[in-house]
Amino acid sequence: MNRVELIWRDIEKIRSNAPLVHNITNFVVMNSTANALLAVGASPIMAHAIEEVRELVKIASCLVINIGTLSEKWIESMIAAVHTAGEQGVPVVLDPVGAGASVLRTDTAKKLFHETKILIVRGNASEIRALRESGSQTKGVDSLHSSDSAVDTARDLINEKESVVCISGATDYIVSSRKIFKVLNGHPLMSRVTGMGCTATSIIGAFAAVNPSRDEAAFHASAVLGIAGEIAAEKSSGPGSFQVNLLDSLYGLKKSDIEQRLKVEE
Amino acid sequence: MNRVELIWRDIEKIRSNAPLVHNITNFVVMNSTANALLAVGASPIMAHAIEEVRELVKIASCLVINIGTLSEKWIESMIAAVHTAGEQGVPVVLDPVGAGASVLRTDTAKKLFHETKILIVRGNASEIRALRESGSQTKGVDSLHSSDSAVDTARDLINEKESVVCISGATDYIVSSRKIFKVLNGHPLMSRVTGMGCTATSIIGAFAAVNPSRDEAAFHASAVLGIAGEIAAEKSSGPGSFQVNLLDSLYGLKKSDIEQRLKVEE
Amino acid sequence: MNRVELIWRDIEKIRSNAPLVHNITNFVVMNSTANALLAVGASPIMAHAIEEVRELVKIASCLVINIGTLSEKWIESMIAAVHTAGEQGVPVVLDPVGAGASVLRTDTAKKLFHETKILIVRGNASEIRALRESGSQTKGVDSLHSSDSAVDTARDLINEKESVVCISGATDYIVSSRKIFKVLNGHPLMSRVTGMGCTATSIIGAFAAVNPSRDEAAFHASAVLGIAGEIAAEKSSGPGSFQVNLLDSLYGLKKSDIEQRLKVEE
Repeated sequence: MNRVELIWRDIEKIRSNAPLVHNITNFVVMNSTANALLAVGASPIMAHAIEEVRELVKIASCLVINIGTLSEKWIESMIAAVHTAGEQGVPVVLDPVGAGASVLRTDTAKKLFHETKILIVRGNASEIRALRESGSQTKGVDSLHSSDSAVDTARDLINEKESVVCISGATDYIVSSRKIFKVLNGHPLMSRVTGMGCTATSIIGAFAAVNPSRDEAAFHASAVLGIAGEIAAEKSSGPGSFQVNLLDSLYGLKKSDIEQRLKVEE
Repeated sequence: MNRVELIWRDIEKIRSNAPLVHNITNFVVMNSTANALLAVGASPIMAHAIEEVRELVKIASCLVINIGTLSEKWIESMIAAVHTAGEQGVPVVLDPVGAGASVLRTDTAKKLFHETKILIVRGNASEIRALRESGSQTKGVDSLHSSDSAVDTARDLINEKESVVCISGATDYIVSSRKIFKVLNGHPLMSRVTGMGCTATSIIGAFAAVNPSRDEAAFHASAVLGIAGEIAAEKSSGPGSFQVNLLDSLYGLKKSDIEQRLKVEE
Repeated sequence: MNRVELIWRDIEKIRSNAPLVHNITNFVVMNSTANALLAVGASPIMAHAIEEVRELVKIASCLVINIGTLSEKWIESMIAAVHTAGEQGVPVVLDPVGAGASVLRTDTAKKLFHETKILIVRGNASEIRALRESGSQTKGVDSLHSSDSAVDTARDLINEKESVVCISGATDYIVSSRKIFKVLNGHPLMSRVTGMGCTATSIIGAFAAVNPSRDEAAFHASAVLGIAGEIAAEKSSGPGSFQVNLLDSLYGLKKSDIEQRLKVEE
């Protein structure tokens, strides 16, 4: 199978299995990421109460943890959820939103990174760097660094703890112990919509639910979102219509779209 | 008056009175259900603090309770709100999102069901069945059952406690002690947008605010949403544009749309 | 410089500096206001945990406080955040959503009004009146009064405590100790979308981040939103498409749009 076929196989699995993806995510993107998961064919559930997260992780095919609007109680639930995921063999995708912007975010992101067993981390370069470099800074939730500047940090992180690290930017880097994938697909309008990184994280969750190879799951998801973003941008006159068209593109994505547009290095 | 005229009378009342609908609902759909209520002509308020829910229920024409992203404090507020609603004669529409998927959801849904006085429950078949059957399961928040499979449960629920039960699905069933209404309107794209069930629940709230007959309110609201969904789907190329067009359709709905499209059994 | 040039200078500054605007806002509008801030060129962060708000206010160019879905913990964070803003010289835009509808909202709004140092308040007429008149009432979060009816209250508020008061409505009034600006731009569809007032508040935040004259910032922001709303409405068939087109209009706004459409009195 070539890369297009491998990506397409994942999409068909998501569409036919509708895997349950459990999200403990931020208030800003709950609606948009649930819709992105539905558009790609998955079945999202958003739930954060400590009383139910363990139970829901057990029936989920993947757990997505996003620290975008943290607070104490939610952190407890996130920790409980990743522990259950570890016990159950459920893969976890972690989005360290705004790591580097506050001590709370940096510390929580590091804690979750270390306590998660089957792990994919996805963030922008500043967030990924903040997971290791104590002096690293983000400007709020936006990156101050280009994605290639975090590849060395990603390697260090993987040495520190077995995981896959996905650095989003104009080029996406998916770094694992065995190799580096690069995704060149995407469009600048994606950075003008709130939660586009969070959407990438959730979609990686859908792919990780059907593909046990974590770096491939992150790679395929990044490529698919980038391609859907390109198709959407061509029909859009700004970030409002772009959001609408992105959901339509994800929903209607065809194998030929991937064949014609895939721009990756591996 | 024939059925079209009865439905249209409700719509005109909502549009001219702009009834205040108080929602204690989940984080995922707060924005989309508020917009659906505004599009249909109602005035939504979203508020959950225990310090203010009693006060707001007193000025509301209807209370909508949706357990989609539960936590302990919110449950307290929901209970306080339904008690005040009972004292004030305010109708309540309950959406037991994900009942069956976790003990917390099932137990909370049952408690709210029993403690509410003037009640309409709306859920998918799995959620409705979970209100009575201890073994019933949902797949997260999506139904594993077709809507007709829950009609017997709905009858049992009504015998247990006076209420109206609305089961959403390809066919909607509105079950009351006196009769069963069926709504055949709708479109498959509605299940590819997050919170479409929650939107149905909120719109039932708008109709219950102007129509004291609870089963008619649920019936009319379900028909109107189904028809608006059909109109929207015809203009849409996926779930993104569908959401946009649905709000436009609800806002611009004409009596002739109902005349031409209404597909119900009563 | 004439008014168009002054407004355009602010927009160019926002677009080139991408100022960080920290929002402690309500669940309903987090996504839509973050997207409006991104569309206008600012960099939004949504964060409410008491553990991090002080830290984030220190790196922000403006703080937006919106009480739309209050609860106890959030009030603590809001108070901590406005205190830090005062110490740091960071301007604050306060949106007293639903003041008058519940004691909790009225009391919290008054407390925040008095404890904030560099302050712009934006609300509808009922909300502004509720900040001074104990008997004033809102219908939930919608105004029962026309905006001009609150101009005297605005003057009283400014006498009570140095601030700028922006009253939104068919005509917007921006009242400061030195003068009154009026904005006549806008479109009725804006009141059919949830959180349009909250969007106005956040966009004032973007302008206050680059323009130290608080009344000018509120004035320019109100004019820009009104003009973007007019452009959006002309392309829309209801509140769904209006929201999409509004983000596109804000994003693509040109100097000539302001020249051709600006309708203000000063």
